[in-house]
Amino acid sequence: MSANVPTDICFSFSGLMQRGGKTGPHRDGWGIGFYEGRGCRLFHDPLASVDSEVARFISRYSIKSKIVISHVRKANRGRACLENTHPFARELWGMSWVFVHNGQLKGIKKYPLKFYQPIGTTDSEHAFCWMLDQIRSAFPKPPKYSGKLSEFIYILAKRLNDLGVFNFLLSDSRVLYAYCSSRMCWLTRRAPFSKARLIDEDMTVDFNEVTTPNDIVTVIATRPLTKNEKWIRMERGTFKVFNDGMPQLQ
Amino acid sequence: MSANVPTDICFSFSGLMQRGGKTGPHRDGWGIGFYEGRGCRLFHDPLASVDSEVARFISRYSIKSKIVISHVRKANRGRACLENTHPFARELWGMSWVFVHNGQLKGIKKYPLKFYQPIGTTDSEHAFCWMLDQIRSAFPKPPKYSGKLSEFIYILAKRLNDLGVFNFLLSDSRVLYAYCSSRMCWLTRRAPFSKARLIDEDMTVDFNEVTTPNDIVTVIATRPLTKNEKWIRMERGTFKVFNDGMPQLQ
Repeated sequence: MSANVPTDICFSFSGLMQRGGKTGPHRDGWGIGFYEGRGCRLFHDPLASVDSEVARFISRYSIKSKIVISHVRKANRGRACLENTHPFARELWGMSWVFVHNGQLKGIKKYPLKFYQPIGTTDSEHAFCWMLDQIRSAFPKPPKYSGKLSEFIYILAKRLNDLGVFNFLLSDSRVLYAYCSSRMCWLTRRAPFSKARLIDEDMTVDFNEVTTPNDIVTVIATRPLTKNEKWIRMERGTFKVFNDGMPQLQ
Repeated sequence: MSANVPTDICFSFSGLMQRGGKTGPHRDGWGIGFYEGRGCRLFHDPLASVDSEVARFISRYSIKSKIVISHVRKANRGRACLENTHPFARELWGMSWVFVHNGQLKGIKKYPLKFYQPIGTTDSEHAFCWMLDQIRSAFPKPPKYSGKLSEFIYILAKRLNDLGVFNFLLSDSRVLYAYCSSRMCWLTRRAPFSKARLIDEDMTVDFNEVTTPNDIVTVIATRPLTKNEKWIRMERGTFKVFNDGMPQLQ
């Protein structure tokens, strides 16, 4: 999620968490990160989200954030355990970077790492460490023109995508980067708001009742979360940057 | 906490969280980190722990861990916000390092940083980044003899302690390091177990009922958490390493 005002994710997460064992097979752990200013609070659980007390808590407790990143995992490489649970997080330039990945990258572990080392054994965390290493080497300080950084991340994404499937979401606490390798879609909600109904759970929300007229909220997911809204499919190999709830022009 | 078997912290945390606004003035946020294998799950909240839904959840939900580090904050430097909330965490050598600090360090922000940069504005996070920088420079790879690392951390602790008050707990996911600048105490529970009664909350636990005969659990805190047990006060300027529930011989 990317939003222009701190917004809670309870509705969308209530749908997503069903995919961790009930409506989807991603039962090998789940996690979520909520940015608040420069900080990010992360919740991780190696349990299936449908069986997780922490997930139940998160689906009910409103944490307001302008950027939220969440993931339900189906293990490919790396067993189901805490250190293999997304999101992965590292600090670069005194900023909190958070990453989730859907897919597999063949041969990624041969990519040498310098500054950042994986704690777990997933290909995802290795890819994240490699990307941050590249960014750190190319930009010892954050570039003044943010477009330079986005372009660089897009180049890295394309390069890693050659190794397999690399749908990912990434944030540096300022914007949300999304890369579509095989599937990713998004949806922007803004006035006039209407009702939305989840696909994975019998739940409806009337956004008129929980928003103000200036709110702009974009939700990005590998598959649509609601059934009565018009999700926009990203094309394979495309990259988008979301800022304050809106896709940036590229 | 350091333990030889995964142990939950609900009892001790039920006492500690009262110090975040009820029995103590540390109401500027709180946090906790639970190691599970190489991973660590962190919970942060900028709210006072006595008012925090997340703290209430953590005090009731059993998460079993061999190393737990928690903190309730009274802001000295750096406003009350998420990024200034302890524990601070960074990765070094593919290991998850977690740090909490009680005290203030005058002039710490003049200490130059290289690899690690603070995300927030506390002197604590700056000190943590500086220590990790020093460790990283001295040991590009983890030293084979772990005593070398402990000795080095002790030297860093003494150096920073000259700047003010530097009670801290630190872990690299394998052992728990504790430095007593002005106050720190600890207590080891092992068979034969008995009852313990919290100081900050009307709660008693009979450890006979929740342990096995081989369990060894040490709790370290700036002030004792229970009233009927014999806490051992650390002397000012001393350093201890706890491993599998026991203080290591030094």
